[in-house]
Amino acid sequence: MRSHSIAVLPGDGVGPEVTAAALEVLDAAQDAFGFTTERTDVPLGAEHYLRTGELLTPDLVERLRAHDAILFGAIGSPQAPPGVLERGIILALRGAMQQAVNLRPVRLYPGVPTPVAGLTPQRCDLVVVRENTEGSYVAEGSAVHRGTSAWTAVQESVNTWYAVERAVDFAFRLASVRRGRLTLCHKTNVLVEAGALWSAVVEEVGRRYPDVETDYVHVDAMCMHLPVSPERFDVVVTDNLFGDIVTDLGAVLQGGLGVAASGNLHLGGRAPSMFEPVHGSAPDIAGRGWANPAGACLSLAMMLGHLGEGEAAAAVEGATAQVLAELPALAGAGMGASTGELGGRIAAAVAQRPAVENSLM
Amino acid sequence: MRSHSIAVLPGDGVGPEVTAAALEVLDAAQDAFGFTTERTDVPLGAEHYLRTGELLTPDLVERLRAHDAILFGAIGSPQAPPGVLERGIILALRGAMQQAVNLRPVRLYPGVPTPVAGLTPQRCDLVVVRENTEGSYVAEGSAVHRGTSAWTAVQESVNTWYAVERAVDFAFRLASVRRGRLTLCHKTNVLVEAGALWSAVVEEVGRRYPDVETDYVHVDAMCMHLPVSPERFDVVVTDNLFGDIVTDLGAVLQGGLGVAASGNLHLGGRAPSMFEPVHGSAPDIAGRGWANPAGACLSLAMMLGHLGEGEAAAAVEGATAQVLAELPALAGAGMGASTGELGGRIAAAVAQRPAVENSLM
Ligand SMILES: CC(C)[C@H](C(=O)O)[C@@H](O)C(=O)O
Ligand SMILES: CC(C)[C@H](C(=O)O)[C@@H](O)C(=O)O
Repeated sequence: MRSHSIAVLPGDGVGPEVTAAALEVLDAAQDAFGFTTERTDVPLGAEHYLRTGELLTPDLVERLRAHDAILFGAIGSPQAPPGVLERGIILALRGAMQQAVNLRPVRLYPGVPTPVAGLTPQRCDLVVVRENTEGSYVAEGSAVHRGTSAWTAVQESVNTWYAVERAVDFAFRLASVRRGRLTLCHKTNVLVEAGALWSAVVEEVGRRYPDVETDYVHVDAMCMHLPVSPERFDVVVTDNLFGDIVTDLGAVLQGGLGVAASGNLHLGGRAPSMFEPVHGSAPDIAGRGWANPAGACLSLAMMLGHLGEGEAAAAVEGATAQVLAELPALAGAGMGASTGELGGRIAAAVAQRPAVENSLM
Repeated sequence: MRSHSIAVLPGDGVGPEVTAAALEVLDAAQDAFGFTTERTDVPLGAEHYLRTGELLTPDLVERLRAHDAILFGAIGSPQAPPGVLERGIILALRGAMQQAVNLRPVRLYPGVPTPVAGLTPQRCDLVVVRENTEGSYVAEGSAVHRGTSAWTAVQESVNTWYAVERAVDFAFRLASVRRGRLTLCHKTNVLVEAGALWSAVVEEVGRRYPDVETDYVHVDAMCMHLPVSPERFDVVVTDNLFGDIVTDLGAVLQGGLGVAASGNLHLGGRAPSMFEPVHGSAPDIAGRGWANPAGACLSLAMMLGHLGEGEAAAAVEGATAQVLAELPALAGAGMGASTGELGGRIAAAVAQRPAVENSLM
């Protein structure tokens, strides 16, 4: 029987709740589609950090590297200093595993309420390819005269041809099997050095994909167009920071963060990719069963597709979409069922192998 | 009679059309409220640039400096190299005149269609205070190995205590006369150096405004919250780049770019502030009368408030809101009237001195 080794990193807050739901769905998918997984639980997160001071260690990186994929819940806690867990775990993993792109589908499933008037599933089916290892996320800069009224802070965004090229090439490849349209989202009129590099990469890589039509949109204009005309976009490629911003807005169209899924993809075959719901640890609602497991389950579907379990991936996506369509509300007490109950329903639906019109990847 | 000297910079594309409409409204306001203006037409823009190669010259800066305010249309043309006019005129003016903040109200007027389901004017009344002189807009950086596969581009964001403090202080002052709530929007968990400075400034300046409640939101989360719960925000202070992004999203809530107004405010009394609609030159619809003059007229209202013509400001805002509420569509042929006709209607309404519930500033 096919077997995949999965590192499971439930994390903090609602992370363990949605991850438990996703694992129940994974069990059902294994039964229905005849494969197994070996799962290693990884205790990274706030609790572990506060107890041991440990974030992602080199040793852990080596152990994680041996897995076929990482299933990630959420990281973050008000008890830890701001940003430390995010940088020390999430961003550290994306970097250590060279997860070159963060793939974030912005897809509205039928029957899911969206706050945008008149938006339909037909009109909302795009994918954002976010460069995932550099840009402003090098999190580097410098400061002089810190703590005085002459304090000056310089924050840097680093863009290498190598990293931009692999993200852009991935995006073109994706566009060529989708609707054949790639949009570069940047702010080239102001970020002149970074913009010149990104534009040159898109131009050069584009020559390898003559059937893909390319265009360009400034990130500010993107935030204006995305809510009202998402149908303008098929594959959007953008830098780390703009991708972060644009996909949270995209999540709004999809029905909220609880529904949005993502894959941090390693493209070279030498390290695992990592799949995580776009939502955070949401400490305010942790432990109540109010988190929607859809984001985690759709991330699981992406993982299964990535592992070559295409049928299982489609069934998990279909099952999640089916259960989503039945919900009275997309999060909180109003969902009418707990995180765990919804996981159970999605798991039950997987056994029926429901189909979806397009798959996530 | 009170007199104000205004430099008028209509610019490119639809800029001259909306500016002409705004000037007709200004005429009506002068008649109704008993003041005059001396107007100097400034020919900056694509045509002038393409003919002479001239952007904002030091000489022009000196001549503009003598005015009480600048009324700006829009700049940008497909004939000019990308970004050159924007940086050489708009950004150059913001810098040369030390227009410390870009004030962008996000206000939904009654009767204006918004794409966000269920949004009401009561729930959508916030102001974004965008730092307007630095951050990523220093447009500086460096590159090595340009044009090769080792090309690496570094883009810099510069943040000085001086500029951040004056923007944050302005925002606190505004919050203290509004609903007493200030939100810092940044990405402190990733942009650590810039984030530390911004957070420290908000903390320190906040001590001077004990009655203003402060909170913090990451820019990605902001883009998620803004469309669905704008009522969470009163005054939002943010950096130049995030402000650019967030206010284009804000414009969506207000009914589109055609409605959004802005003021580039010089705070020291030694140079003019500049008032401009948030929309660009829209070359695709230039000359057709399809541009909505509301953004330009609301920017005029902000200018009048800034010049101490508070009653005229309120009347122009009220008249614009009144005409907006009557439009079948907010831009294009569907408006049912041309840019010029709408300017005429707003001008006529000004004479009736309509009132608005809150004024723009
Ligand atoms: C938690 C944070 C560091 C992270 C990011 O900024 O990438 C998150 O917002 C995301 O989008 O995955
Ligand atoms: C034209 C461009 C340089 C400008 C900016 O980025 O500030 C515009 O988008 C704006 O918001 O006024």
